[in-house]
Amino acid sequence: MKQFLLLVTFLFSTQLFSQTDAEILKSIYNKSLTNGKSYEWLDYLSNQIGGRLSGSLNADKAVKWTKEELDKLGLDKVWLQPVMVPKWERGIPETAFIETTSGKSIKVNICAFGGSIATPKEGIKANVIEVNGIKELKSLGKESVEGKIVFFNRPMEETFIHTFKAYGGCIDQRYAGAMEAGKLGAVGVIVRSMNLRLDNFPHTGSMTYGDLPLNQRIPSAAISTNDAEILSENLKNDKNTQFYFKQDCLQFDDVQSYNVIGEITGSEFPDEFIIVGGHLDSWDMGDGSHDDGAGIVQSMDVLRLLKEVGIKPKRSIRVVLFMNEENGMRGAKKYAEEVKQKGENHIFALESDSGGFTPRGFSFDCSDSNYNQILSWTSLFKPYLIHYFEKGGSGADIGPLKNEHIVLAGLRPDSQRYFDYHHAANDTFDAVNKRELELGAATMTALIYLIDKYGIKK
Amino acid sequence: MKQFLLLVTFLFSTQLFSQTDAEILKSIYNKSLTNGKSYEWLDYLSNQIGGRLSGSLNADKAVKWTKEELDKLGLDKVWLQPVMVPKWERGIPETAFIETTSGKSIKVNICAFGGSIATPKEGIKANVIEVNGIKELKSLGKESVEGKIVFFNRPMEETFIHTFKAYGGCIDQRYAGAMEAGKLGAVGVIVRSMNLRLDNFPHTGSMTYGDLPLNQRIPSAAISTNDAEILSENLKNDKNTQFYFKQDCLQFDDVQSYNVIGEITGSEFPDEFIIVGGHLDSWDMGDGSHDDGAGIVQSMDVLRLLKEVGIKPKRSIRVVLFMNEENGMRGAKKYAEEVKQKGENHIFALESDSGGFTPRGFSFDCSDSNYNQILSWTSLFKPYLIHYFEKGGSGADIGPLKNEHIVLAGLRPDSQRYFDYHHAANDTFDAVNKRELELGAATMTALIYLIDKYGIKK
Repeated sequence: MKQFLLLVTFLFSTQLFSQTDAEILKSIYNKSLTNGKSYEWLDYLSNQIGGRLSGSLNADKAVKWTKEELDKLGLDKVWLQPVMVPKWERGIPETAFIETTSGKSIKVNICAFGGSIATPKEGIKANVIEVNGIKELKSLGKESVEGKIVFFNRPMEETFIHTFKAYGGCIDQRYAGAMEAGKLGAVGVIVRSMNLRLDNFPHTGSMTYGDLPLNQRIPSAAISTNDAEILSENLKNDKNTQFYFKQDCLQFDDVQSYNVIGEITGSEFPDEFIIVGGHLDSWDMGDGSHDDGAGIVQSMDVLRLLKEVGIKPKRSIRVVLFMNEENGMRGAKKYAEEVKQKGENHIFALESDSGGFTPRGFSFDCSDSNYNQILSWTSLFKPYLIHYFEKGGSGADIGPLKNEHIVLAGLRPDSQRYFDYHHAANDTFDAVNKRELELGAATMTALIYLIDKYGIKK
Repeated sequence: MKQFLLLVTFLFSTQLFSQTDAEILKSIYNKSLTNGKSYEWLDYLSNQIGGRLSGSLNADKAVKWTKEELDKLGLDKVWLQPVMVPKWERGIPETAFIETTSGKSIKVNICAFGGSIATPKEGIKANVIEVNGIKELKSLGKESVEGKIVFFNRPMEETFIHTFKAYGGCIDQRYAGAMEAGKLGAVGVIVRSMNLRLDNFPHTGSMTYGDLPLNQRIPSAAISTNDAEILSENLKNDKNTQFYFKQDCLQFDDVQSYNVIGEITGSEFPDEFIIVGGHLDSWDMGDGSHDDGAGIVQSMDVLRLLKEVGIKPKRSIRVVLFMNEENGMRGAKKYAEEVKQKGENHIFALESDSGGFTPRGFSFDCSDSNYNQILSWTSLFKPYLIHYFEKGGSGADIGPLKNEHIVLAGLRPDSQRYFDYHHAANDTFDAVNKRELELGAATMTALIYLIDKYGIKK
C-alpha cells in the first residue's frame, strides 16, 4: 500500500510538473507571437541604424540604442563593457571588369573583403589563374601564379543539407586566399561568393594576411556567383582573359567600442550565470538583419519574455550583445576574459547567429551527461516543431567561454536560405519574416527557462 | 547454433536492407539538389505561362506544356483526362475607398473573390457593419445588416504554430460570408484577407452563394490586412464611415479542360497504383508559384528522379496534375470517378499543395496499422531534417479517393510564410527558393520509393 501511494504521488507530481512546464512554454510562445518585441526592434536596428561594422558610427549608434532599450526593460543591471575594436572602411564602391582578348569589357559585381588593402588608385589589371582552392594554388607554384590575379572558384557543396557545413568547406579561400597567393607573388585575389544561389550579389567577409610582410599583401575581393560563372566560362574559352579591379579600402587604428550587457539577477543562485546573445556588429553591405540583427533582438526579447510571462529566474540571466564578431572577435574575447578574472560561474551560454529563419532546434557543445539532461526536455518542444537537438558547434561569440563544465548551445534555424543573404547587400529587414523571428525568440526563451529551472547537473 | 545463425542472418539482412534504402535516399536527395528539374520547370510555368485560373487561356497553355514536358521524360504513358470546368473572370481591376463622414476618400486594396458577381457599373457605396464572423452576423439579424456592406474582420489566429489551422479558422467568412449576408439583405461583403502578416495585398479565394436566389446574391471581395485595420479604426472612430467598391466580374458557361497524367507502369504489380500530384490551376492574381506551381513541378520531378536514380518501380506510379482545385474541384472528382469506374486499385496518394518551402514531413490520412508501417521508416529521413510524420489531412485533390484501404498523404513544408503569398499578387517565382523546392521534391520521391518497394499492408 505504501508503495502504491508512493507511485501515485510520483505519477501525480510528474504529471503536475510536466503540465506546468508545458503550460509555461505555451505562454512563452503565445507571448512572442502576439506581443513580441523582436520584430519591432529589428525594424529599428535595420532601418533606422543599418549596417554596423565595428568601429563605425552606426556601430556606436547600435550600442547606444540597444543599451537604451535594455534600460527600458526594468532589468536588474544594464551596462557597457569597453573593448577596443578594429576599424576598416570599404571606401568608394569597387569596380571590376572581365577584359577579353577581343577587347570586350564585361562589368562584374565585386566587393572587397573586410581587412583587404586597397588596389593602387588606377586599379589592377592582370591575367587570371583559376583554382579550386588553396591546395591547387600551392601545387601550381610561383611560376604559374606570379603577376597574376588568383581566382578561387570552389563553390559551396549543394548536397549538404546543413548549409553551414557547405560554408565551412569554402571559407579557407576567402580567409587565407590572399595570404597564400601573396606568398606566391600574385597581384590580387578574387573569390567566388559563399552563396549557394546563382545571383548578382557579392558577399564580403573576413580575411587575414597573417604575418605576411607588407610588400606581399595583395587586395582581395568577392565576386558574385553569376559573375564567377561568367569569368570561369571566359577563362575556359580563352586563358588570356584578363581581370581589372579597383578598390579603395582603408585600415585605421583600433577604436573604443562596447559589449552591451543586461542582467536579471537570480533569486536563489545569483552566482550561477546563464547567458544568451548574438553579435551587435555586422558587415557594411546590407542592414545585417539576419547576421546578426535577428540574434540581437531575439536575445533581448528572451529577457523581456521571461519577465512578461512572470518568470523570476533562480539563476542570473544575462543578455550579451557582443561587439566585433565579424572581423576580430574582440568583444567575445573581452567578455570571456572578464568572466575568468572575476571567477564568474557561467553554466550555460546560448547564441543565435544563424539567421532569423524558422527555428528547428539547437546544437550543443557539452558533456554527454548534460546533453542527455537536455534530451529529456525535447518532448516539450514538439508542439512547436522544434526537433533538432544534436551535439555540435554553438556560436563564435560564446566559444571563448568553453570549459569542461559549461554547456554551450547554438540556435539552429532553417539554413536553406541563409547564404542567399549572408554578408551581402540583400541582408535586409524585408528578408526576415516576423513569425519566424518570433518563433526563434520563443524557442530560445523556452530553453533558457528550463535551464534556469533545473540547472546544469555537474 | 542454428538460432545464432538465424540471428546473424537476420542482423546482416536488416543491416543490408537499411543501408540500401539509406543509400537510395541519399542518391535521390543528391540528384534533386544538383540536377533537379523542379526549379527550371517552375520558372517556365510561373514566368512564361503565369496565373492559370480554370478555363483561362493560361490554364490551356499549362495543360499543353506540362503534357509536352511529361512526354519528354520517357514515361510509359502520358495522357489528358477531359473534364469540364467553371470559367470566371475578374474583369477590370477593382477599386475601393473608405469614405469618411468628413468627406475624405481613402483608397484601399481589394480583390473580388472567385465566383463573386460584379457590382453595378457605378459601384456600391453604403454604411459598413463590422463583424468577427458568421455567428455574430446572424446574431445581429436583418435590422442591423440590411442595406449595409458587411465587413468580416476576424484575423487568423497568430498563436497556432500550424498556419493552416489558423486559415481553417477563418475561411468560413470568405466562403459563406456573402451567402449569409445576402440572406439578411446586405448589399456587399468585404472580408479581411487570410494573411497573418500586415501588408497591402488582398488575397482572393473561392466563395459560394449556395442556392441563394439571384436577387439575394451580393458582391464579395477581400481587403488587404493593412486596409482592414484602417477600415476598422475608422469605424471605431465613426460608425457612419462608408465604403465604396466596384468590381467587374463575369461568370461564363463551363469549358473543356483536362487533368494531365503520366505513368510509369509497375514491373511486378502493375495494377497497384501509387499517385503523386498537385493542382495545375491557380488563382489569377500572381503566378501561382507556391499555390500550386511548386506541387506541380515537384510531382513531375518525382517520376523523373525515380528514373534518374535508376529505380524501376514494382507498382504503377502516376503523376496527376489536377485541374480546378481552386474553384470547383472538378479535376479531382473526375479522376476519382474514373478510378471507381475502372476499379483501379489505388494504394497510396500523395499531394503537395502547401507551398514550396523547406519540407518538414508529411501528414497521413490512413489506418493506424498503415501509419505504424510508415513510422518504421522515419529514421531514414532524419539526415534530411524530415521529422514530421503525423496523422492528419492530406490534400484536396486526393481526398475523393478516400476509402478504407488507401493511404492518403500530404507534404508538409514549413508553413510560417505560406499565407504571406497565398492567393495574392505576390505569389510569384521569386518567393520560391530553389533548394527548398528541390528538398521537397526529393522528400516526396523518397516516400514514393519506399511505398513502392514495400507496398501498403492490408
